[in-house]
Amino acid sequence: MKLQILGSGAGLPSKNRHTQCIILDLVDEINQYYCVDASEGMQHQMLHTNIKPSKIKNLFITHLHGDHIYGLPGFLSSRDHQGGKDIPLMIYGPKGLKNWLDVTLETSRSHISYPLEIIEVAPNQTFNVDNMTIEVISMQHNIECYGYIFTERTEKGELLVSKLRDIGITPGPIYKEIKESNTFLHDGKVYDTNDFLGPEKIGRKVIIHGDTRVITDNDYKEKLDGADIIVHESTYLDGEIEKAHQYHHSELSEVLSNFKSIDFGRLLITHISNRYESDDLILIQERYRDECIFASDFMEITIPRKS
Amino acid sequence: MKLQILGSGAGLPSKNRHTQCIILDLVDEINQYYCVDASEGMQHQMLHTNIKPSKIKNLFITHLHGDHIYGLPGFLSSRDHQGGKDIPLMIYGPKGLKNWLDVTLETSRSHISYPLEIIEVAPNQTFNVDNMTIEVISMQHNIECYGYIFTERTEKGELLVSKLRDIGITPGPIYKEIKESNTFLHDGKVYDTNDFLGPEKIGRKVIIHGDTRVITDNDYKEKLDGADIIVHESTYLDGEIEKAHQYHHSELSEVLSNFKSIDFGRLLITHISNRYESDDLILIQERYRDECIFASDFMEITIPRKS
Repeated sequence: MKLQILGSGAGLPSKNRHTQCIILDLVDEINQYYCVDASEGMQHQMLHTNIKPSKIKNLFITHLHGDHIYGLPGFLSSRDHQGGKDIPLMIYGPKGLKNWLDVTLETSRSHISYPLEIIEVAPNQTFNVDNMTIEVISMQHNIECYGYIFTERTEKGELLVSKLRDIGITPGPIYKEIKESNTFLHDGKVYDTNDFLGPEKIGRKVIIHGDTRVITDNDYKEKLDGADIIVHESTYLDGEIEKAHQYHHSELSEVLSNFKSIDFGRLLITHISNRYESDDLILIQERYRDECIFASDFMEITIPRKS
Repeated sequence: MKLQILGSGAGLPSKNRHTQCIILDLVDEINQYYCVDASEGMQHQMLHTNIKPSKIKNLFITHLHGDHIYGLPGFLSSRDHQGGKDIPLMIYGPKGLKNWLDVTLETSRSHISYPLEIIEVAPNQTFNVDNMTIEVISMQHNIECYGYIFTERTEKGELLVSKLRDIGITPGPIYKEIKESNTFLHDGKVYDTNDFLGPEKIGRKVIIHGDTRVITDNDYKEKLDGADIIVHESTYLDGEIEKAHQYHHSELSEVLSNFKSIDFGRLLITHISNRYESDDLILIQERYRDECIFASDFMEITIPRKS
């Protein structure tokens, strides 16, 4: 599991940053990519990676501002010609997304031959998709806006082959049956399966925010607890807290202080304004190097399992 | 006057080609750029040129297929923040463009603060804009599709200062008056202004096609006559005439043979399919080097005045 950043910028793209598009690479787990937000040029960015459009089967939109959705029609149309002809795609996003896509694809006579389903989400909804539970959380922005909490299912540990051999069970189809049971019968005796399993594979938790002011509610913070990685915007990096508030965005020092009370892994800062393209950004990154990671286009971050 | 190519590809972008976006650089003439088609990522391409979005005041859409319009909403939104706040923009394009833009800008809550006018064009319409006459010509595609003929106004030649001095007129505001008149009175004698002017500055003619099959009508060919440069699509470059016909596109050899009976300057081939990204393209370019130019992204072509 890893994150791949295709767009780390705020409202306006710059030479080095496309606007928001974040890939959750689940190829090792389920041979798929999830995608959060679909900025203009995402299909162009993908051409410079190994990502196959047809392997994006679930796409999540945080909100309908142009810098988060204008790449969606092009991606959908091209996916059809890039091996995605029969491979379904689900899109989750705010109300209004379906109508806009309908009008856009109709206007441009874009024929999509794969099954395309658009689910308009609501706050606190959860979806079980593949090996994930996905929870929709509300952001504080000037338009309906969400974040997504991706929680990987916790799986049973590996079968302890040597322990099974000790009681006389040799490898075969029976192993699968045992693993899927809670108890099993052998030589007239009932065993607890848990006694023959290694440690649980604890599911990872990845949280990707949409555009938002810093959210201080306890309910929200509880949901973030235990995250392996949190992706949060900081359109403003350098003290302009009032401006951030005025435009319904976040400023970095506020984000850091808000997260002090939460127990989590790493923090990835993204949605970085194009004003920070100079040496200033290097200084800011240096200043906060122990507290967070700053996203850049084409950055990859591996998310290991908790051991 | 020059052409700058921001996107030279066909339906699907490739690593090296964005889809269609062509700039007619009129900075030396009227300090503006015209733009024909608005492919996804045009605002990103522009970041790598000297083109200021606010200097695009007239934008022409050939047709509503996605590879020609999906960059328009992003360009329009960003232009507002890139010095274009009060600078009007006119967009010319087929019916349906206005509704799509209205829905798109409304969905994404994109506030455009400059005056934006969308003119839905019809075949054979002409517009006088700045120093140009712009004629709309019908293409043969599978959707309403146009080409645009840009004809620069022919201007009077320079005043011949030495001839004016010969009859005793020295430089001053009178020169402007003389240039703008047909005849003028001096020392009781009437002069024909033409006798005091150098050769006319003949207006240049640039023709940019939308997607189309090869058009063989005489009416159409007459309109192309005398063009300084013709920009025409060849989605297919290597003999697949039937396929081109089937998909309402053109094949190169057909284009070249169709234009044999027309008297014009240069031919720029664009809308090149992403299948020609290999050494094949080099061979094709070599074969046709005396007959046409092949567009590539960021190519610039100067269009000199006829002397």
